[in-house]
Amino acid sequence: MRTTAGWRADGTGTALRQVPLERRDLRPEDIAVRVDHCGVCHTDLHAVKARAAGADPVVPGHEFTGVVTEVGPDVTAFRVGDPVAVGNIVDSCGVCAMCRAGQENFCHEYPTLTYGGTDRHDGSTTLGGYSREYVVRERFAHALPAGLDPAAAAPLLCAGITVWEPLRALGVGPGMRVAVAGLGGLGHLAVKFAVALGAETSVISRTAGKADDARRLGAHAVVVSTDPEQLAAARDRFDVIIDTISAPHDLGPYLRLVAMDGALTQVGYLGPVTVETFDLLAGRKKLTSGGSGGLAATAAMLEFCARNGVTADVEVLPSGKVNEALERLERGDVRYRFVLDLSDLP
Amino acid sequence: MRTTAGWRADGTGTALRQVPLERRDLRPEDIAVRVDHCGVCHTDLHAVKARAAGADPVVPGHEFTGVVTEVGPDVTAFRVGDPVAVGNIVDSCGVCAMCRAGQENFCHEYPTLTYGGTDRHDGSTTLGGYSREYVVRERFAHALPAGLDPAAAAPLLCAGITVWEPLRALGVGPGMRVAVAGLGGLGHLAVKFAVALGAETSVISRTAGKADDARRLGAHAVVVSTDPEQLAAARDRFDVIIDTISAPHDLGPYLRLVAMDGALTQVGYLGPVTVETFDLLAGRKKLTSGGSGGLAATAAMLEFCARNGVTADVEVLPSGKVNEALERLERGDVRYRFVLDLSDLP
Repeated sequence: MRTTAGWRADGTGTALRQVPLERRDLRPEDIAVRVDHCGVCHTDLHAVKARAAGADPVVPGHEFTGVVTEVGPDVTAFRVGDPVAVGNIVDSCGVCAMCRAGQENFCHEYPTLTYGGTDRHDGSTTLGGYSREYVVRERFAHALPAGLDPAAAAPLLCAGITVWEPLRALGVGPGMRVAVAGLGGLGHLAVKFAVALGAETSVISRTAGKADDARRLGAHAVVVSTDPEQLAAARDRFDVIIDTISAPHDLGPYLRLVAMDGALTQVGYLGPVTVETFDLLAGRKKLTSGGSGGLAATAAMLEFCARNGVTADVEVLPSGKVNEALERLERGDVRYRFVLDLSDLP
Repeated sequence: MRTTAGWRADGTGTALRQVPLERRDLRPEDIAVRVDHCGVCHTDLHAVKARAAGADPVVPGHEFTGVVTEVGPDVTAFRVGDPVAVGNIVDSCGVCAMCRAGQENFCHEYPTLTYGGTDRHDGSTTLGGYSREYVVRERFAHALPAGLDPAAAAPLLCAGITVWEPLRALGVGPGMRVAVAGLGGLGHLAVKFAVALGAETSVISRTAGKADDARRLGAHAVVVSTDPEQLAAARDRFDVIIDTISAPHDLGPYLRLVAMDGALTQVGYLGPVTVETFDLLAGRKKLTSGGSGGLAATAAMLEFCARNGVTADVEVLPSGKVNEALERLERGDVRYRFVLDLSDLP
């Protein structure tokens, strides 16, 4: 086994502690990655809180960038020194219809999650990217294109692909009217993508306070969702709404802003959702949901980002401040993504 | 005012009684229709039961066929003696974005329903097609194409258009795999349409007992939803599922049968629906809902039916047996639509 260091939630509270971690010896198709930057995702916060409620110890982190430090004998795509990026899945069955379609994230045998997953070979629980080293099958690592800042690119691997997939699946491009509800880690990237894809892009926010930020990100308009007049004026306006709000909420007011034959895609909250069928049928609207993406789409997104200069707006903190980052994330005090700099780990 | 006779729920129970009814004098754009046949829809049953629970008196009926008996001075599309068909809306604002798009059923001012609606000119409550005469604005009546049996065509105007719209909106045709869940008034027409549109068509039913019927209607296969093996084998199989089940039910098992990027359309039940977002996101599936259709789509459907010999499988009863029809409909004892013959009314 290899040894490294990382941040683990294993006590009774929510605080992560720095601990030594073991990584597997490289299998023939594995690469070892020195993790330099890892984004802090809402999922990490949920996992840490679940640990406090009695779940197993967890090392979070599933959107990270770094440099290849060692390669297994069968590795063909990477060499030592290559910059790489890893997202929220690190293996899948490879033979089911979804894997064959390039949607490993929907693997019928369930993909192996980057942390809290079960390794398909040795049955161990995967430990995430809040760590100085990660060992991963090369197929599930992506070359990080030149020109992308490694810290600002890290959130693309989860927040980014989660909004990229529905935007692409729904054909967003020039001539389409897109709105993004919620301006956080996912939302701000959805705005940048929609703008870069050529869509007329709006932000739907509860307060007018984010209007300047929205415009700075490239949005062409802002709809304040607490203003009934603005809601009424925006009825049936958007071909696509990407709803990134990370808490349960009534989808009705958002569905009513979707245009005829348009779609509301819900990506920020993964519990059950309830809709009035009338809100769907009046305008033949579609409800969809998104979360992560396949390998091919992730690679395409990274290329798009390099071509268009799109990365996340990040606040980089030394990994020693991980608990502060999680606490501030919980109260929404971040614009728009914390990224941990792991170089302070041994 | 004109006088006619019809069936009205106005007592404390659910029984309809034959009563004299008034119809408005013809406005310039109106036609008077002698109602010959009117389908018995689940909505009628709900309306009658709502009356029993204290709602206003109601004359149900919103899918009927008959013959023009008189025309207003500005009528151009019909002459006395023309066979016509009327569905579940009889007026709309005509100027909103939905009306201009030919989707009068989604009129922003809410379309005038064929019964229980509010007339846009005199504010009266509309009385439905369980009646010997109906007066309607010509724009909301359809020419009944030659060759369509008037009794068997009546259910096309509500049950038919309700399933036709999503099938067309989702591009159902050759090469697509369509399943219909629930084999009632809506479901049996969805099967006939999907088959006639060239799709590979299956029926999803709780029991194997409807398999013979499904095949007689043209279905190529049957999936028994209470058999876990059949459900597992059908996972991700269908590009489109039309769910016509008329009671609240878990959509999860049906969503899991939808193929990547496919859609589940819910048309049989109009209350709130709850879905696990994971069932939507794992395969980028879409949830949509349907109910009624616009004038242009209704006319197109009638032409398609005439060309392809599609009508409903009906059991025609004299209107004097309306209470028996509603009672049998409630317990599901109909294959597949009751149609009232109004010629027994004075």
